[in-house]
Amino acid sequence: MLPIAERVLQGEVRATARLLRAIDDRTGPWLEALAELHPHTGSAYVIGITGNPGAGKSTLTDQLITRYRRQGHRVAVVAVDPTSPFSGGAILGDRIRMQRHALDREVFIRSLATRGNLGGVSRSTADSVRVLDAWGARVILVETVGVGQDEIEVARLAHTTVVVMAPGLGDEVQAIKAGLLEVADVFCVNKADRDGADATVRDLEMMISLGHEIVSAGAHSRGHATGSLDLAHERMRARDGEWLVPIVKTVASRAEGLDALVEAIAKHRAWEETTADGAERAMGRAREELRVIFREMLLDEAHAALAADFEAAAAAVGARATDPYSAARALVKRFRP
Amino acid sequence: MLPIAERVLQGEVRATARLLRAIDDRTGPWLEALAELHPHTGSAYVIGITGNPGAGKSTLTDQLITRYRRQGHRVAVVAVDPTSPFSGGAILGDRIRMQRHALDREVFIRSLATRGNLGGVSRSTADSVRVLDAWGARVILVETVGVGQDEIEVARLAHTTVVVMAPGLGDEVQAIKAGLLEVADVFCVNKADRDGADATVRDLEMMISLGHEIVSAGAHSRGHATGSLDLAHERMRARDGEWLVPIVKTVASRAEGLDALVEAIAKHRAWEETTADGAERAMGRAREELRVIFREMLLDEAHAALAADFEAAAAAVGARATDPYSAARALVKRFRP
Repeated sequence: MLPIAERVLQGEVRATARLLRAIDDRTGPWLEALAELHPHTGSAYVIGITGNPGAGKSTLTDQLITRYRRQGHRVAVVAVDPTSPFSGGAILGDRIRMQRHALDREVFIRSLATRGNLGGVSRSTADSVRVLDAWGARVILVETVGVGQDEIEVARLAHTTVVVMAPGLGDEVQAIKAGLLEVADVFCVNKADRDGADATVRDLEMMISLGHEIVSAGAHSRGHATGSLDLAHERMRARDGEWLVPIVKTVASRAEGLDALVEAIAKHRAWEETTADGAERAMGRAREELRVIFREMLLDEAHAALAADFEAAAAAVGARATDPYSAARALVKRFRP
Repeated sequence: MLPIAERVLQGEVRATARLLRAIDDRTGPWLEALAELHPHTGSAYVIGITGNPGAGKSTLTDQLITRYRRQGHRVAVVAVDPTSPFSGGAILGDRIRMQRHALDREVFIRSLATRGNLGGVSRSTADSVRVLDAWGARVILVETVGVGQDEIEVARLAHTTVVVMAPGLGDEVQAIKAGLLEVADVFCVNKADRDGADATVRDLEMMISLGHEIVSAGAHSRGHATGSLDLAHERMRARDGEWLVPIVKTVASRAEGLDALVEAIAKHRAWEETTADGAERAMGRAREELRVIFREMLLDEAHAALAADFEAAAAAVGARATDPYSAARALVKRFRP
């Protein structure tokens, strides 16, 4: 085994940080290290935290770190969200608030720059999660923003995805309808002390029931259940192995509703581990991970093999000497005659 | 030339819709049709409209359709935004509002479902834009949502990208800092009659000036200029060929500020067409388009060649009989021995 892989397995923070950087830069035997670490992974529980900017994802993530640390778990955060204070994209107050985990050696925070890294976010996330799993994290929180494809892809790599929204942010329900409904295992209405929180919950309930027929025709069936701060866990119940997406209200800034949220996540975990639907979902995750890794590996190889050809072709397209379809087809043929 | 390509060039709406569907489904000689149409494209001006949900992008797009129609242009809309009423993701009021263009034969609205179409949005957008260009659209508005990678990629395919935000949506300025600053050619502060509009403008000015040094070190240099409803066009001025990103205030629901916005877009177009920095940017767009088309073509071919192998590998990964890195590497090797 490579020395760096060994050191990661021993829980060394600096070696782990170094390997993560090597993976980013694709320098040294990063791929071998990942393959070597793989048999030692699979123990971490990966929780996706997603939603629009302003929903309070980072504050919620911060609170979840505290909860899981209190349970005795080693915790990692992968911040794919470029607006997250974990990624350095925060205003001063946020950044200071996050400092309280900075000295905790059992918390590893990993920021993924999305800028300039087109197409590789899902893979970088998958790789980071794997390394942090090998490092010994038992809970890995992956924070993403928005409803884009990448976010949905990242969410598919998580065991449980929490979609966070806040009242009064405008079209959040439309956004949910469009993309987030598909990935939500738990809905969290944060800033629930604000006006409009109950309306947001009602909108969500309606949206879930409207979307239910479409979604349940998909790969894994879902229903819905609703809960308030105290009722959430009572009303959640699986029916015929189907997962009922609960709605949990929180006020993360005052640490309210966190118990219900942590419990909703735990219930989803139990559902996945004990039902046929859950097993099918786990299988889908493996397929998705392979797909993402394969795609990036293939594109890397094509990039390396075709660099000069690509620039020549781009110049020809720019000069309108050829069309991009014919040029792309010629490049594919050159890559795989 | 293929009959369908001919009919698109003659401006037939139904043939255009059919070709767009064929491209989506990848049935028939869609690739040949695209290649044949290419020499007849390049006249359309592509305007990206992006921003978070709730910023009012669709209302603004609606107003821009009206403006450009009034100028006598044939107009197309490609709605990549799943929350857009153009994509069918709207509440009833929005949908009715949009109807006013439904009977205009010189307006073509194309909705791109992002759901289930992972990784292909940028290419589908590029293809749709090309077909609508060949159909005769002289202005193509591409509406996207959020700050994800796909949105940034789509924005890079546009000639001019307008980043729309509204006061009071929370962390919009953080979001801009993170990703949208990179792609903004024009900032539009919509719903400018709301409290906080001036604060949003000030935040933007600060953010732009902070980001300026980083951004200007990039591929194409940018500065900034600020304008209000009436001052926007006066304050915009190119300095040493550098584009100064203007901030335009609008109230799209009352059609206020649209003149300034249309003018800001026109100035950006003139900048690109007349300066060396602009020419460099046009070249970058050609490269980006080729990259996106090549990537999807390669992945299509890999998918077709490896379907059965892929499922077997995914099952092995799911059963933890192998790790996804080794499995992916074996698949790449099988694809290109």
